[in-house]
Amino acid sequence: MSKKTQAIFENFPWHLVLASSSPRRQELLRYLGLPFTIAVPAIEEKRRLHESPLDYVQRNSREKAQIVYQTLAHDKPWAVIGSDTIGVLDDEVLEKPLDAADAKRMLERMSGRSHKVLTGLAVVFGQGPWASAHGPGPSAGVEQRVIETDVFFKKLTAQEISYYVGTGEPLDKAGSYGIQGIGGFLVEKISGSYSNVVGLPLVELTEILRCLPSPF
Amino acid sequence: MSKKTQAIFENFPWHLVLASSSPRRQELLRYLGLPFTIAVPAIEEKRRLHESPLDYVQRNSREKAQIVYQTLAHDKPWAVIGSDTIGVLDDEVLEKPLDAADAKRMLERMSGRSHKVLTGLAVVFGQGPWASAHGPGPSAGVEQRVIETDVFFKKLTAQEISYYVGTGEPLDKAGSYGIQGIGGFLVEKISGSYSNVVGLPLVELTEILRCLPSPF
Repeated sequence: MSKKTQAIFENFPWHLVLASSSPRRQELLRYLGLPFTIAVPAIEEKRRLHESPLDYVQRNSREKAQIVYQTLAHDKPWAVIGSDTIGVLDDEVLEKPLDAADAKRMLERMSGRSHKVLTGLAVVFGQGPWASAHGPGPSAGVEQRVIETDVFFKKLTAQEISYYVGTGEPLDKAGSYGIQGIGGFLVEKISGSYSNVVGLPLVELTEILRCLPSPF
Repeated sequence: MSKKTQAIFENFPWHLVLASSSPRRQELLRYLGLPFTIAVPAIEEKRRLHESPLDYVQRNSREKAQIVYQTLAHDKPWAVIGSDTIGVLDDEVLEKPLDAADAKRMLERMSGRSHKVLTGLAVVFGQGPWASAHGPGPSAGVEQRVIETDVFFKKLTAQEISYYVGTGEPLDKAGSYGIQGIGGFLVEKISGSYSNVVGLPLVELTEILRCLPSPF
């Protein structure tokens, strides 16, 4: 059989950073077998007046990656992954619920119908020549993408919503549910990328990483 | 807010048994919050000549549930859940790979195209009146369903296949991958039920359990 290999890319030249505190994103990124470090970006996610949901997640993901990139020494090729996920129902953005009552209202509205999950994905990467840690930093490039998945919820009973909110799972999730956890029982079908709904679209991320311009 | 509730059904009258050794199915079933026990059915899964993939998973799931049901004392209302999952590519059934080389061949064929995942789901349940443990057993009813999901794989490089097979994850999975694990990076999109691809379609199971005839 084929010999055991360590990652999806051979001789990957980048030092990866994931700009996210989400354990779900960290787990997904580990699946690629590439070493990476984690940095939590200090940004406030706030939608601007008249900003479309698509522009909003794209900007959030890019800003997360850029903020972390700026903290790095520029002595080697870093690539920083930023990601932001929202739900969209009737053009309204569904972010993390404020509290259990807010989660309950959100789930009641989502019951028996479909919504969209949008993830903005941005990779900010250094472009050489590589200076010393104390020299001027190289210029940074950015590759970005927004990925969309349709998610259809079954018709939920009051008991089901009450049970799910009571588990506590909705409280830290955009759209008040996690498809990869207990919230799996809410989802009748999806159309599109699954890892996108979890929060880090792996196929698109792999494509971006594969196609970054060589750092050397 | 709503008070915390313990499960998706109130006053669920059945004693549930999951006829499966799969930790993934056990995890999915736990999401419903209903207590259950686990029993591993001793059946040989072998497709009959000219048996369609759909008939095959339906029969397997039903037999798993029936075999376990027959081992139970019939003094209270038991409901046994049986489930069987296969991949189907060009009308060919994809079961668990024989070894790493078989997994590699399977993944090479699945690369860059879509296949179907079929799960047979069967619930075998007792119909009263309830005898004592030593009296004659009640007759058993069965509710069953086959659920189908389309899964589209990205185009895989030799390195990606070699890496994935090397992780060992494909070896105990029908179709040589697990969507909820490292195999998530293979899946560009799905159309249909996600929990079905993991191995236990939760929405359909919930519907069946909700609509079982009252045991009393």
